Formats: sequence, structure tokens, C-alpha cells
Amino acid sequence: MQNFILHTPTKILFGQGQIAEVSKQIPADARILITYGGGSVKKNGVLDQVYAALAGRDVREFSGIEPNPTYETLMKAVNIVRDEKIDFLLAVGGGSVVDGTKFIAAAAHYTAASDPWHILQTLGHEVTHAVPLGCVLTLPATGSESNSGAVITRKATGDKQHFHSPYVQPLFAVLDPVVTYTLPPRQIANGVVDAFVHTIEQYLTYPVDAKVQDRFAEGLLLTLIEEGPRALAEPENYAVRANVMWSATLALNGLIGAGVPQDWATHMLGHELTAMHNLDHAQTLAIVLPALLVEKKAQKREKLLQYADRVWGLREGSEDSRIDAAIAATRAFFEKMGVATRMADYQLDGSSIPALLNKLKEHGMTALGERQDITLAVSQRIYEAAR
Amino acid sequence: MQNFILHTPTKILFGQGQIAEVSKQIPADARILITYGGGSVKKNGVLDQVYAALAGRDVREFSGIEPNPTYETLMKAVNIVRDEKIDFLLAVGGGSVVDGTKFIAAAAHYTAASDPWHILQTLGHEVTHAVPLGCVLTLPATGSESNSGAVITRKATGDKQHFHSPYVQPLFAVLDPVVTYTLPPRQIANGVVDAFVHTIEQYLTYPVDAKVQDRFAEGLLLTLIEEGPRALAEPENYAVRANVMWSATLALNGLIGAGVPQDWATHMLGHELTAMHNLDHAQTLAIVLPALLVEKKAQKREKLLQYADRVWGLREGSEDSRIDAAIAATRAFFEKMGVATRMADYQLDGSSIPALLNKLKEHGMTALGERQDITLAVSQRIYEAAR
Repeated sequence: MQNFILHTPTKILFGQGQIAEVSKQIPADARILITYGGGSVKKNGVLDQVYAALAGRDVREFSGIEPNPTYETLMKAVNIVRDEKIDFLLAVGGGSVVDGTKFIAAAAHYTAASDPWHILQTLGHEVTHAVPLGCVLTLPATGSESNSGAVITRKATGDKQHFHSPYVQPLFAVLDPVVTYTLPPRQIANGVVDAFVHTIEQYLTYPVDAKVQDRFAEGLLLTLIEEGPRALAEPENYAVRANVMWSATLALNGLIGAGVPQDWATHMLGHELTAMHNLDHAQTLAIVLPALLVEKKAQKREKLLQYADRVWGLREGSEDSRIDAAIAATRAFFEKMGVATRMADYQLDGSSIPALLNKLKEHGMTALGERQDITLAVSQRIYEAAR
Repeated sequence: MQNFILHTPTKILFGQGQIAEVSKQIPADARILITYGGGSVKKNGVLDQVYAALAGRDVREFSGIEPNPTYETLMKAVNIVRDEKIDFLLAVGGGSVVDGTKFIAAAAHYTAASDPWHILQTLGHEVTHAVPLGCVLTLPATGSESNSGAVITRKATGDKQHFHSPYVQPLFAVLDPVVTYTLPPRQIANGVVDAFVHTIEQYLTYPVDAKVQDRFAEGLLLTLIEEGPRALAEPENYAVRANVMWSATLALNGLIGAGVPQDWATHMLGHELTAMHNLDHAQTLAIVLPALLVEKKAQKREKLLQYADRVWGLREGSEDSRIDAAIAATRAFFEKMGVATRMADYQLDGSSIPALLNKLKEHGMTALGERQDITLAVSQRIYEAAR
């Protein structure tokens, strides 16, 4: 096991009816800005529940945070926070709203440079304080509700970049599985694939004898495999939605990644696909991961065999055949969730691969993966194999 | 899954050499009191490491906190904290030192009653603040390093009682597996059994379709079963000690118990055995648990079958035979760790059972277990079966 520091301070309020508890989590005299996305939280009644919980409090709102939240939109909220002296942010939505709100929180108090895009360029290292925030999660997927990271897109340049800072870790996260009942199937499917790949990024690397982390990661994968398809088939099955929601949070709160090597190349290659072609984040992961696993079979051999055994129950045949079967099962799982796994499924013929590689280079993504051995040449092979 | 609130704010610093980081975790102007036990931390050099890390800081020390820490000893430290205006406590030791330090932290600032024993009598509910604390853990076992609970014994009356308060949750915990190399085998064995039973108390109840919690609990049990005997056989195997240490922390930081029913009857029956006969905490758990599982076979049937399958790989034969085999395997595991599982092994003939039941009654422990159906009559049967 590698040395680690693990800090998971976000207080989780989980279960039906927990939105009612939100007021107790926010200082009594706070000037609150509720942030949300395109209005689905209005239609499904979640925003009403939040306002009911905050009755009598000093509340404003900012809407319009888009999927893959953009710097351009978020800077409008930054100005509101500054002008209105907002001192608490409450994100109501999925990972994009939470990520966007983290950027707002950091940018509103940012002094290190005149343009807060600098936060992304310096990966968040120069953030020294932020507006405190909490969230009411409506879409289980990214884990952003209980970690310190965010991914932001700059529309003008087509850049999609990430930053981390302990100052933007949500103080609390309300997770009510009932609010996910009305999500479109595509969003549930994307969320399950996203959580699955988050887990894989921290698990399918090389062994460091971290038995608990491995068992926990496998537990999340097994749960997502069992409950993902049921979440689509039985959208109002509370237990199923609860298991998916809790899995997605635990997939990226730091726990399973503590003390183990991490990959994240699938995410980096995927980000460029989203930024250039506007694919859903999870779609890009479903495209890249199977191709990456084939490419890195030798380097990931031991963990691929463990994954084949413990997650897919593959114990017959040669080692190579078990590895191939595990990668095929992974692809089949994404397809079963309705998330296609090849560029061609999204009308991409691969002609943008040179441009994707240029973007990777521009973003410094020239030595990716747990061994930093995914060079641009390797990324090219992965993109080619993913066509 | 049941509704839950989960808050795990303790920052974990895990791995070889992390004691050196302790100074950064404590406010620069703090008046620090180091608390420890019987001196093993002096012999094995851990205290020296702590002092080296705190060079130049304002540090005092209090030693002599015993296993099953007593109110009588701890009140001496409370007086030091009050007299010397200590504003940070650093526990250096195992669960007893950490538990004792939690009591010191709460009692030093306690105003609800003139005698801080009231904290135990009211289960901690009236604690409203405490001296902040951190810890350097030397014995993986209780999980106290990252939770809000403590068990304290009053020597004068033979009472062993617990309290919980968020104010005594350690701000940080340093977990360096190397410091466990010199532990006596009995303490390692006790720690593994303790962590195992903590997990069982939150797992072997009845199903609530909490798939992640089940998989995580099973992951801890499997790890302890694999690594526990190796920890005895290979005391300086870093990876093994690291896996045991991390398992013990995660067995009782709130995570696996969030959203599921919990039992804890084994602990309550065990506490009376320790208080009356001075057995090690883990010895009492090893005595009580197998007898309790036999007694509650019907009520725990579904989870016992899952436990038999997923933890012990028992998939052949009738359901009853698999359950019996799983209970037998549990007992055999404790014995393999060198922790005997019957009262007779500790020269107890059962003649104290009426007195034990009186103590349970006196402490209000008359409806224990996940269904509150372990009455005194049931506890009597469990004690009798454990002879």
C-alpha cells in the first residue's frame, strides 16, 4: 500500500426526505445563492423542496449552468456572488452544477490572477479560500458532491480542464434517491457508466497489496453491474436507486483511491472527445476504456486477471482468454446500459484524431496513466482502436 | 437502505514516516498535552518520534492510561488540562488511550454536571464542546481514532460504559503500520478479532438491500481473515500490517454501518465480562459472538447464509449446515488467532452469570440487538452457551 492522506469531511445526508434538513446545515445569517441547471429541478419539484426547506432564509438563485459547465456562464454567477456579497452557495443538480458551483466558489474570492481561468491553468494549487458550499444532488454520477475536484470547459477555446482544492469541497451533500426517479434513462445510464469508470481508474492499474481498497472497488463494480440495468428497468425502485446513488458517491470521494496507483487516462482522452464533439462525458468513457484496456493488457495483466475473477466470475480458460472476456464483458455492460462504445456509433469516423492529439499535447497530457507511459503515440493507438 | 447521516471528518495520515507530519496538523500556538499508556511507546521509540515531530512546540505529557481506561485515572488528566490551560490533546497509543483522551477532552470542558461521569450516564448527549484532539495510533483494533465514541470504566463500581459526541472525534489520526511491528502477538490478535467483530455487528443482522455496505463489510472480513494470521506469522510484513490497520479503522468509522441495522449485543455482553473479570475486550467478543450467532440463527438467517457464501465460500449442503459451518468457521478463526472462545478457557465456570445479568439490567441493557429482542433471558442463554 502506498502512503496516503485521506480527508472526507463532507457530511452526507442520505435518504428520502433529507432535503428538509438542508436549512440546519447552513449558517443562520448566510446570504445564500442557489445554483442550478436547465430547469429540470423546477419541473420535478426538487427546487420547491429546497425553497420550502429554506423558508425565511436570505436566498437568491442563479440558473443556466449547462452540462460540461462553461467558464463563460459561471463568470456571470461569480459577478453576482461578488456584487450581492453571497456567503453560501447551494448547488442543486448533478455533477455539472456541483462542479460549476465549485468554480464559482473559488473564482469569487480569487486574487492570484485577474482572470480566474488561471485556477484551471494552475490545477487549483493557488486557491487559498472560497465561498463555502453545500449541495443537493439530483444525478448520481460524478462523485463531485463529496470531493474537491471540478471539471470546467472554456467555450471560446474548446478547452475542458480540471482543478482541485480542499476549499471547494462541499460541507454537506443531500442524497435523496427519490429525486432521481424522473431522470431520463440516458442520464441514469451515463451516471452508472461514469461511476463504473471512476472505480476502474483507481482499480485496474497494478497491484500494491492494498486488499481493502481492492475489495471496496470490486464491491462498487459488482453493485453497479447488478443495479445499473435494474435502475433503467425499474426507475422507481427505491433500493436500486439508493444503491446506485451511494455507489457513485463512494466511487470518487477519495476512499477507494487512497494508497493505490491511479490511471485517469480514459478520462483525459475522453475530455478531449467531449470538448471537440460535444459527446456526453460518459459516452466518451465508454468509447475510450475498452480500447485502452486492450492497449494496456500487458501492463495491467495482474489486475485484469483479478477483475476477471472477482467482478465477472471468469475462472475458466487461459489467462489471456479470461482477460479478453473481462474486457468484452465491460464493453457489453456499457452497451447493455445503452451507452455505445465506438466512435462510429456517434457518427465519428476518426478524422478528428490528429486534432484530438493536438489538444492532448496542448494540455500537457503526453505521459498519462498509472505509469505515465501513455504517450501521444499510445493515445493515438487507443483513439484509433476506439473508432 | 435506511436513511443515514454520515460524517467522517477525521483526516487520515497513513503510512511509514507519517508521524513526522503531526506538527502541521496542530495549531501553531497550541498548548499540547500528549497522553499515553504504560510506556510501550517509550520503549518502541514512537514517543521519541512524536517529540521530534513537535520540536519547538509547547508540549506536556500525561502517562498511565490503562487498558479499559478508568475514570479514576483520566480525572487526573482532566485536572492537568484545566490547570495548565491545555488546548490540544494528542493521544499516542491504542484504542484505550484514544478513548480515554476523548473522555479527558469532553470532561475538561464539561459544565452539565459537577461530576463528569454524568457524560457516560447521558451517553454523551449533553457534551457541547471539548478540547480538540488528534492521535497517533499504535494498535489497530478499536477504530476509535476516527470515530466519536469511547468506552470508559469506573473502577470503584465496576461499570464499563460508553459515550458518543461529535466534539470528541479526532481531527486527525496518524496510522503508521511500522509502529505495530513490536506489538505483542496477543495485542495484534485482539485487534484483529475486535475489528472483525465490529464489522460483524454492523453486517450480520437482517437484509435491507444495502449492497455497497454489505460488499464493504465482506471486504473487511475477507481481508482480516487473510491478513490476521499473517500478521502474527510475519510481524514485520509491512503490507500485511498496513491491511490490518486500515481494515480496523474502516470497520468502525461509520461507513459500513451507515444505512443498515446494527446489533452490538456481543459488545454489551462482552463489556460486562471485561468489567467483572478483567478479560481483554477482544477475548470477551470471541466468547460471546459464536454463542450469540447460534442463539439468533433464525433471526439472522438470510445474512448468515450470505456470510457463509461470500465470506467463507460455503455453498454446498443444506442451508442449516452452511450456517452452522459459517459459525464454526468464525469460532475457528478466533482460535487460530490465539483468542480462545469459551469462558472455561479463561477459568470461568459460569457462576458469575447471575451477577453479569444484574449488571446488564443495571445498565439498561435489557433489549439488545438489531431487533431489541435480546432480553435478559436471551442474554442468559447466550452466556450459558458461552461457558
